[in-house]
Amino acid sequence: MNFRAVLEEILDRVEGAQAITLIGLDGIAIDSVNPGRLPLEGLSAEFTSIVKGLNVSNTELETGEVQQLAIATDRFVTFLSSVTSEYFILMILSADGNYGRARFELLRAKTRLQDELS
Amino acid sequence: MNFRAVLEEILDRVEGAQAITLIGLDGIAIDSVNPGRLPLEGLSAEFTSIVKGLNVSNTELETGEVQQLAIATDRFVTFLSSVTSEYFILMILSADGNYGRARFELLRAKTRLQDELS
Repeated sequence: MNFRAVLEEILDRVEGAQAITLIGLDGIAIDSVNPGRLPLEGLSAEFTSIVKGLNVSNTELETGEVQQLAIATDRFVTFLSSVTSEYFILMILSADGNYGRARFELLRAKTRLQDELS
Repeated sequence: MNFRAVLEEILDRVEGAQAITLIGLDGIAIDSVNPGRLPLEGLSAEFTSIVKGLNVSNTELETGEVQQLAIATDRFVTFLSSVTSEYFILMILSADGNYGRARFELLRAKTRLQDELS
């Protein structure tokens, strides 16, 4: 499967999307689309470490596996969305980007990519 | 100001909202509305520690302060939304709750509460 084509399609469809990458739980990228050269490697490492921490600590509420994580700061919204338990898509939006569309496209990508990555 | 009345109003307005609490960055609650007796104390401690970690590490992208953090798992969506740099609202939604409305009401609450908490 052409992972890059799927990533490019998501980036095109979500208003305000700046960069997107398909990564393993080790934070290493399989493929990325990053026209603005954002520092994806550092972000990938940070976000995957948060998810690993959450999967250990979420037993309190018995919440189940983490599906999506979104962090909004003054300038950006960063999404981390699971594809399988081992692979995630990280996407960065401008603060005024289309948040709901981002969630939708990332859930849709999961369905498209999960068989290939299992 | 009656913090509890503001929290109750948000809980009423957001479809699927299960519990809400106003907490300091130390994870200690000022007030809570928690009819289903969810384990808010443990969650507050976990989420505030994530935010403290992020505020240190987000220098890579120069993102600015964390405004909202949302974590969706199989069963719940948990929001942590800043009021000031020291106080946050934590809200728990069922997985099929109204995510967009939650974001909106939490941003609105910030405007209403921030003067009181500064």
